[in-house]
Amino acid sequence: MAKYCFGIDIGGTTVKCGLFQTDGCLCEKWEIKTRTEDSGKQILPDVAETILDKMKAYHLNGEDVMGVGVGIPGPVEFEKNVVFAVNLHWGYTEVSYKLSGMLGGIPVKVGNDANVAALGEMWKGGGEGSSSIIMVTLGTGVGGGIIVNGKIVTGAHGAAGEIGHASINPDEPVQCKCGNHGCLEQYASATGIVRVAKLVMAESTEYTQLSEENLSAKTIFDAYKKNDAVAAKIVEKFADRLGYALGIFTTVIDPDAIVIGGGVSKAGVPLVEAVTKAFRRYAFSSCKDTPIVIAKLDNDAGIFGAAKLAIED
Amino acid sequence: MAKYCFGIDIGGTTVKCGLFQTDGCLCEKWEIKTRTEDSGKQILPDVAETILDKMKAYHLNGEDVMGVGVGIPGPVEFEKNVVFAVNLHWGYTEVSYKLSGMLGGIPVKVGNDANVAALGEMWKGGGEGSSSIIMVTLGTGVGGGIIVNGKIVTGAHGAAGEIGHASINPDEPVQCKCGNHGCLEQYASATGIVRVAKLVMAESTEYTQLSEENLSAKTIFDAYKKNDAVAAKIVEKFADRLGYALGIFTTVIDPDAIVIGGGVSKAGVPLVEAVTKAFRRYAFSSCKDTPIVIAKLDNDAGIFGAAKLAIED
Repeated sequence: MAKYCFGIDIGGTTVKCGLFQTDGCLCEKWEIKTRTEDSGKQILPDVAETILDKMKAYHLNGEDVMGVGVGIPGPVEFEKNVVFAVNLHWGYTEVSYKLSGMLGGIPVKVGNDANVAALGEMWKGGGEGSSSIIMVTLGTGVGGGIIVNGKIVTGAHGAAGEIGHASINPDEPVQCKCGNHGCLEQYASATGIVRVAKLVMAESTEYTQLSEENLSAKTIFDAYKKNDAVAAKIVEKFADRLGYALGIFTTVIDPDAIVIGGGVSKAGVPLVEAVTKAFRRYAFSSCKDTPIVIAKLDNDAGIFGAAKLAIED
Repeated sequence: MAKYCFGIDIGGTTVKCGLFQTDGCLCEKWEIKTRTEDSGKQILPDVAETILDKMKAYHLNGEDVMGVGVGIPGPVEFEKNVVFAVNLHWGYTEVSYKLSGMLGGIPVKVGNDANVAALGEMWKGGGEGSSSIIMVTLGTGVGGGIIVNGKIVTGAHGAAGEIGHASINPDEPVQCKCGNHGCLEQYASATGIVRVAKLVMAESTEYTQLSEENLSAKTIFDAYKKNDAVAAKIVEKFADRLGYALGIFTTVIDPDAIVIGGGVSKAGVPLVEAVTKAFRRYAFSSCKDTPIVIAKLDNDAGIFGAAKLAIED
């Protein structure tokens, strides 16, 4: 029985790679450059080469490797084909078929990178022990990934987990870049919380260590931890919007856990506490105790999730 | 290979029963009384007896029957055990184990009735051809069922699909019976739309054929179809709240279709058109074309879904 698998996370700049045992033990991780020139046609051969090199170094044959999972920044069909991936300069690409061919027939499964990262967090990260999670990634935007019964939910249009674009406040005067108004992303992303901060500061007369020039998710949460009154109002508004949205989302799939990742989640415990408090205000009674936890795998979530994808039925 | 299965839908008054071919063809349906006396201890023996009688009538042996699916009005564990079912006077009951024993070992799977009905609508009803749906049942309350990749989503607390208790307007002064404020059910159920109607009528000076005495989902939609201006405002408000909620829900699982059932859905095409219009206003761009359709199986959704549950892996 094959004891190893590879998790590959292809980004626009680097390809993150991991060799795993099928129990989730990471043997080694490394990176190679993503060569996007010539419509990215070198990317898959480069991935195949680095996998074959690593197999040689570890004295692994094809039958020792259960599979290869690949996370891609773009929509994916049937765990096989990438519809397009702007950052890789790819059009429609049969990733599974091509890469498996270059690897002597080792099975290859493909997933969208945000979904794959959610799977990684469910397997060995903040959601370990769960089989259903809502993953919320608070970065420049708000991304997400939905895992139900241990499997990625992709959706009819590849849009499952696009919770950053849940329009939770249609009366919002500012338009989201998606065209709608009042998307969750406009309040809970790194840029969203800064936008909220400016509005709160414009209305506030209290002393604050925050200034328009130094505003970021980090400075806001740092000030919050120091009991800055204005930062408290900002965090309350951010947490309220996020908790409200999570309350609605949980009535759909009632997950085992909600996992919060991305740069904003670095704020840690104070963020979790503020969001949990708001979530409980809005959640359906049966779901009020759903744990909200911080993601654990950082930039390795993608390789862990890809490895998990590789070894699934 | 077994060609038949049974779908059983146990309600507080009657048990609906169906004998199906495994391709979904309904051979015969019938009902028996639900005997809830003595803590409902006769219910499962009665179900077993009627199944065995029908097998005799159709000259079926145990090996001809792939399985029996059972829908129950209460939370269910592991497709086997009912946690409690108030209307059946049941506490914790090992339905699968007990009923299978009475049937000579024919496999029995159990599901919550709302979830099972959603599965039926996916299989042979309004969602036929889909593998993922959000089912919304607009009755006295608002129920729901979530199907992803052809399977019922149960949830960590059995609360997946409790979308009627998504708190979509926390500023609502009136409390929902669940304790929260502004649940979808307060606007979109049969009682919710009457509540909305009273508020709209109190603020309106236009002529209307509606009166406080004859208000119901039916009279409101009948007036709407006759271009009653006040009914139009009521339906717009109802559709707006439902469309808004559906827009948020779809960012979670991006279903193939949204299926609307329950008494209010009898309003048919005008209701679908109003809700679809509102939904498109709020939905994420990728999901704006998600079809919203009316459920087709009425009171048979439960037996169809139970039969489908019986033949699943």
